[in-house]
Amino acid sequence: MDFAPELLELGARAQAAARRLAFAATAEKNRALRELAAALPRAEDEILAANALDLAQAAEKGLPPVLSDRLALTPQGIRAMARAAEEVADLPDPVGGGEFWTRPNGLKIEKTRVPLGVIAIIYEARPNVTTDAAALCLKAGNACVLRGGSEALQSNLVLARLIGAAVESAGLPAGCVQLLPWSERVYAEQLMRLDRYIDVLIPRGGAALIQNVARNATVPVIETGTGVCHAFVDAAADMDKAIRVVVNAKTNKPAVCNALETVLVHRAAAAVFLPRLAAEFQAAGVEMRGCAETRALIPAAAEATEEDWSAEYGGLIISIRVVADLDEALDHIYRYGTKHSETILTEDYSAAQRFLRETDAAAVYVNASTRFTDGGRFGFGAEIGISTQKLHARGPMGLAELTTVKYVVYGDGHIVT
Amino acid sequence: MDFAPELLELGARAQAAARRLAFAATAEKNRALRELAAALPRAEDEILAANALDLAQAAEKGLPPVLSDRLALTPQGIRAMARAAEEVADLPDPVGGGEFWTRPNGLKIEKTRVPLGVIAIIYEARPNVTTDAAALCLKAGNACVLRGGSEALQSNLVLARLIGAAVESAGLPAGCVQLLPWSERVYAEQLMRLDRYIDVLIPRGGAALIQNVARNATVPVIETGTGVCHAFVDAAADMDKAIRVVVNAKTNKPAVCNALETVLVHRAAAAVFLPRLAAEFQAAGVEMRGCAETRALIPAAAEATEEDWSAEYGGLIISIRVVADLDEALDHIYRYGTKHSETILTEDYSAAQRFLRETDAAAVYVNASTRFTDGGRFGFGAEIGISTQKLHARGPMGLAELTTVKYVVYGDGHIVT
Repeated sequence: MDFAPELLELGARAQAAARRLAFAATAEKNRALRELAAALPRAEDEILAANALDLAQAAEKGLPPVLSDRLALTPQGIRAMARAAEEVADLPDPVGGGEFWTRPNGLKIEKTRVPLGVIAIIYEARPNVTTDAAALCLKAGNACVLRGGSEALQSNLVLARLIGAAVESAGLPAGCVQLLPWSERVYAEQLMRLDRYIDVLIPRGGAALIQNVARNATVPVIETGTGVCHAFVDAAADMDKAIRVVVNAKTNKPAVCNALETVLVHRAAAAVFLPRLAAEFQAAGVEMRGCAETRALIPAAAEATEEDWSAEYGGLIISIRVVADLDEALDHIYRYGTKHSETILTEDYSAAQRFLRETDAAAVYVNASTRFTDGGRFGFGAEIGISTQKLHARGPMGLAELTTVKYVVYGDGHIVT
Repeated sequence: MDFAPELLELGARAQAAARRLAFAATAEKNRALRELAAALPRAEDEILAANALDLAQAAEKGLPPVLSDRLALTPQGIRAMARAAEEVADLPDPVGGGEFWTRPNGLKIEKTRVPLGVIAIIYEARPNVTTDAAALCLKAGNACVLRGGSEALQSNLVLARLIGAAVESAGLPAGCVQLLPWSERVYAEQLMRLDRYIDVLIPRGGAALIQNVARNATVPVIETGTGVCHAFVDAAADMDKAIRVVVNAKTNKPAVCNALETVLVHRAAAAVFLPRLAAEFQAAGVEMRGCAETRALIPAAAEATEEDWSAEYGGLIISIRVVADLDEALDHIYRYGTKHSETILTEDYSAAQRFLRETDAAAVYVNASTRFTDGGRFGFGAEIGISTQKLHARGPMGLAELTTVKYVVYGDGHIVT
């Protein structure tokens, strides 16, 4: 692949910065983060003016309102971004520490945590990802290359300038955080293949972005954000809890990856549960698509096709299926799930334990909403995304997941015999 | 890609077995391992007979003696394979356990370790990898698909049958361990892309195999085994220790990935160190290739070219370069190293600490041979390989690296607000 010279330069700057940042003191990194937190509200007018340019262009291009919503910044939003940077400064440094042991021959081995190096993040409209991702990468000692959505470019350029100034004021190289200022798609494609400078690529966004990365990246990827999440309402479910959890998991924020897409209902519970659920869903404007048994109990439900069982709707649509028992529910989830988040609603101890044990997913729940799969809600303080792969990181990724290990070995002329 | 139906069947069997094996009791898995350990010496005649067929065919094809050496089994070798299986049975089960915490809302979260699922291992001539890899995968609760070198097929078929019998005698499905019985290359290529059934692919072998996998695999890969390892002999090195360590790291087993390929020598130490080193290397039959300053001190050294600095010789050849100081050594390693294992020889405390901190590699040493980078020598009890990547696992991989995490969440009707 032929790389654009300006991208190669940017990559080399990132690598050089990463080499320095890898052993920056915690205090240096925190100084940059607190400086950024202070600078954001001070630059409110400038940020909002740039954001207004992005919004005006979005309106001109006729982008859908949901996209403009994501793009729009407010004074409160800017304060929240500053608070997030402060919070990352308050978190413990994930670099350093670890375990050590001494071998019988006297070799002392430390297994310690070190930064990954250079992390590239490709994301979409939300400008707050720019500061959030930069803060997390910086705290974990990684240089980052940010590639936001072209529709947010003016906002992101101002934010990146503020981050760069904060980083430099802490005595760290500006190359620690760089935004790709070129919005042409070809730069994103080259970035995905820039193995010589990029250690890890984290895509944050919809299915199309994730698929594009999976197909084209040669840089090692941590995939985030695809979730076909299920709730299984068992025969022994408490109906009030089941209704509350299922409705919450579907309607609280239907666009996110931990939202519910399919409800599986034990045949013995269907006649009681489904009419109540249908009333709640209809009141909330949720479109229902069901199997034949479901439709016999919910006349308003459309017919679910094979595609529905694999669909991540990302909106107010749900698929519903009646199953014979827990086994059939487990088989359905095994076949159609994306191993993100799955929940069982039951008061039956053994059914709960079997579901938790036999369901292969990043997060498995009993009597709780799948919407809890989130770094903040799990108590990690911050998250860079929710990994839907098994290698390296699974589920919500905090600071530790932005590091790798290094063995440091102290000898005294030791040789292998 | 069109997959061979027999490969799809094998993949489906592995996946079904993995689903059962994921929650097998430790005792069940250990029973299979101890049964295998007992069966191997009992089947000595049968194994040696199959191995003789492989060796005869290797001789017929004119394979190089080094390959036949790797291929050849002996009664002692078979007993060592049995002992290795026993040792894996003795290791703690990496599945289960972990941390748990309770959130302010009462949600109880467990972060526990679970198997990866189905692991495919593509390897070369050594038949002992068949039992070693199967034992490690099994203990970590993973089904495995093994693809050994075609030259070892008869030996591997017998070993796989013994493993299968041991697995079934423990009440586990035979699909837990399957050997690809087809030696055509196309099966290996399809296996690398069998994402629907394979969770992780671990190649074990030379550079050609690793590169082939990196180019063709769509299944997530853990790369192993590429090492361009350096020793830096500092101005403050103890010359006796330095000679001992450098000679050991190069000559103890030059074919392996943790063997030394390049010696960097501080200019202030060169005049004393290099002539002594040259005498040792000449006595050991090591071919030397050096920079101009090296050749002025070692007339027997050939001229090192740019390619030499990146070469993993895998044999008795070494490249030698005189550097101005620690900075130049660090820069050389940063540019040409593969981030595997690097060592500094010095009595200078601060030089040692700087080298350990600023060298980016899986293992960094002071005054010790790079040959220690090994699961057994680190005290892990066993290893499936040495990862040369940063994601998921870095350095020697033990049982824990064959697992992933799962969050298990206990609620009582909890919803997100």
